[in-house]
Amino acid sequence: MQARLLYEAQMPEPFSFRLIATDGAARAGEIATPHGMVRTPAFMPVGTQGAIKGVHHDDVRASGADIMLANTYHLMLRPSAERVAALGGLHTLMSWPLPIITDSGGFQVMSLSALRKVTEASVTFRSHLDGTMVELSPERAVEVQSLLGSDIAMQLDECVRLPAEPAEIVRAMELSLRWAERCKRAFESAPDRFQKIGRALFAIVQGGDDLKLRERSARALTDIGFQGYALGGLAVGETREVMLDIVAACAPMLPVDQPRYLMGVGTPADLLEAVGRGIDMFDCVLPTRNGRHGLAFTRFGPINIKNAHHADDPRPLDAESRCPAARNFSRAYLHHLFRAGETLGGTLLSIVNLYYYQDLLAAARAAIAAGRFADYRAQSFVQWRDKRDRAESSSDGVKII
Amino acid sequence: MQARLLYEAQMPEPFSFRLIATDGAARAGEIATPHGMVRTPAFMPVGTQGAIKGVHHDDVRASGADIMLANTYHLMLRPSAERVAALGGLHTLMSWPLPIITDSGGFQVMSLSALRKVTEASVTFRSHLDGTMVELSPERAVEVQSLLGSDIAMQLDECVRLPAEPAEIVRAMELSLRWAERCKRAFESAPDRFQKIGRALFAIVQGGDDLKLRERSARALTDIGFQGYALGGLAVGETREVMLDIVAACAPMLPVDQPRYLMGVGTPADLLEAVGRGIDMFDCVLPTRNGRHGLAFTRFGPINIKNAHHADDPRPLDAESRCPAARNFSRAYLHHLFRAGETLGGTLLSIVNLYYYQDLLAAARAAIAAGRFADYRAQSFVQWRDKRDRAESSSDGVKII
Repeated sequence: MQARLLYEAQMPEPFSFRLIATDGAARAGEIATPHGMVRTPAFMPVGTQGAIKGVHHDDVRASGADIMLANTYHLMLRPSAERVAALGGLHTLMSWPLPIITDSGGFQVMSLSALRKVTEASVTFRSHLDGTMVELSPERAVEVQSLLGSDIAMQLDECVRLPAEPAEIVRAMELSLRWAERCKRAFESAPDRFQKIGRALFAIVQGGDDLKLRERSARALTDIGFQGYALGGLAVGETREVMLDIVAACAPMLPVDQPRYLMGVGTPADLLEAVGRGIDMFDCVLPTRNGRHGLAFTRFGPINIKNAHHADDPRPLDAESRCPAARNFSRAYLHHLFRAGETLGGTLLSIVNLYYYQDLLAAARAAIAAGRFADYRAQSFVQWRDKRDRAESSSDGVKII
Repeated sequence: MQARLLYEAQMPEPFSFRLIATDGAARAGEIATPHGMVRTPAFMPVGTQGAIKGVHHDDVRASGADIMLANTYHLMLRPSAERVAALGGLHTLMSWPLPIITDSGGFQVMSLSALRKVTEASVTFRSHLDGTMVELSPERAVEVQSLLGSDIAMQLDECVRLPAEPAEIVRAMELSLRWAERCKRAFESAPDRFQKIGRALFAIVQGGDDLKLRERSARALTDIGFQGYALGGLAVGETREVMLDIVAACAPMLPVDQPRYLMGVGTPADLLEAVGRGIDMFDCVLPTRNGRHGLAFTRFGPINIKNAHHADDPRPLDAESRCPAARNFSRAYLHHLFRAGETLGGTLLSIVNLYYYQDLLAAARAAIAAGRFADYRAQSFVQWRDKRDRAESSSDGVKII
């Protein structure tokens, strides 16, 4: 018995997705990965360079995160995929035992590299670190993510900033499709050591704001067949309405029994809207980036702790919060930390926001299971609006960045 | 019974010092304060602006700190002593329930203010924050520390940077003496609300590197009578040998039954040497400042984690450490965090160093109690030297800042 338990403990769980409940278009489920379970809808905090900015792993885990996202582009440049692999993979290097998803680098090539050249074969770009030219092909993107040892890898895609010429959107979408196929081949023919642990490869639906293109992309990708599907090329310049319309239109194009991932989104409101349109997974830097800049997300709407009226306020951000940082520190203290330039302020607000995002989706999961997701979403919006501190509505108020 | 326990729990302990053991000149003891016990020799981490830089309170407490130091100069300028008092005092503002010691501002007036004018009455200086002129008298220094609610307040002194002209050292020492007397009067005649909680006032022995002056200062201060005595004006430019000689000479001039505090010192070696010369309390920014700059203090000497040879090193800083950050993260990961500019690296090394300093003095206390402090000190030096990583001795090595 002992031996059998030990054997089971050592056998990594292969990737799988189980739908637990639906409520309208909203879905609650579970993703099994070699490093554990991910409850969906899931918020995945962003550890671009193998660290959630300013926040200790223990706090990330305590916030309720089941999985984190790391960045292929950044990690292949520093410390390099081969070095991470030699050190036992990213889980070992980071001392992060839970699941890791890695994006493929396509988005960062677009946003960070001044010089880049896209050909059929690959994208070549100038490293923002040392100026060297680096080539990233679909096959290399898969190899890098295998070397990192991520539980969920993303295909390499070409991401176009919106608005863009229709022809440009078509070209990038079709190239991304061909790259998806090459990624899948590379993933399936990877050396045994990369395959045996039940890792997954997700495709990325492209097509800009053209629903016909999005549909062509989604159909072609599902014909190839992946373990999950992301919506890419969103939150890149289009309006929020356009984004939500595309999400609403695309989600039903994707297999009902596989996870759907909206990349790089978004505000608490965006998350609830997208969950209501059938999305299962999110990643975003908003909780930590805004936390570092003094903005706290709370049940009563966002609070800009740098505003002067907090200087004398002994109340915590939320006395009822599950988050110790939201309960135990006064707004006056948090305000002081920001005024004094103490990085602890950004750390505490990042923690507050990570908890808030996790609790937002935990409540969404419960609401979906109970068949009252629409009510939960509506109540959240009312609470953000009506219970908001009056002072936060003033002109020196709140800007989410 | 219940009622009596409750009553006792609410009665703050008045300040007192109890000597538990001596071993040569080294002493182990306990300071009782209104916010709890401080085991001596004690290392007091520095929270200049009401926060230990980059480190969460929970980690500071877990490191074993019994007390922290905050800064009168900084807090009176921002957020202001009156504001802290209105918010319930510094313990409440910070959510720090353990003892707090505050320095008087004398040292910061010397080191941070470009323009300052010392008269018999007070020191007037230009705020480094907004350029306004601020006056700090002995009476105001006591009032500010009472408003902050610190468990241990320090007299206002004039601190002279060494080397200095003898006449200048004499003048500053004698002024500091007269200010000590005024501080005591102000402290004793303070409104009831400041006195009833058993707070303490320490004097500061001055006199530069002139032992005769130091003796005059120590005698005069003990004649006035304080609850503890600090050695000030050290670690301000003199050599380490001079500092230790002054410590060795001054400690015996101070009452045996009261705590002795060496301000602003120092390296792990400095601490052990000073404990061996009869010092009970230390504060220093070295653990956190060096941590932020990539230097870890360990049982095997200091390690500069930014050195290139750590990039592929899977070993933790110290697998046997009580500190989770020293045990659970590889040198390769810590190196990566610094290379990548992730502030988490500085946070983790600051935590490592805070634990190391606490453990260094915890072991000193145990050694003193066991009558083997000289052995412990000697073994520590041998271990720092002989078990040091060979690579750390190279020219790109280790510079404590």
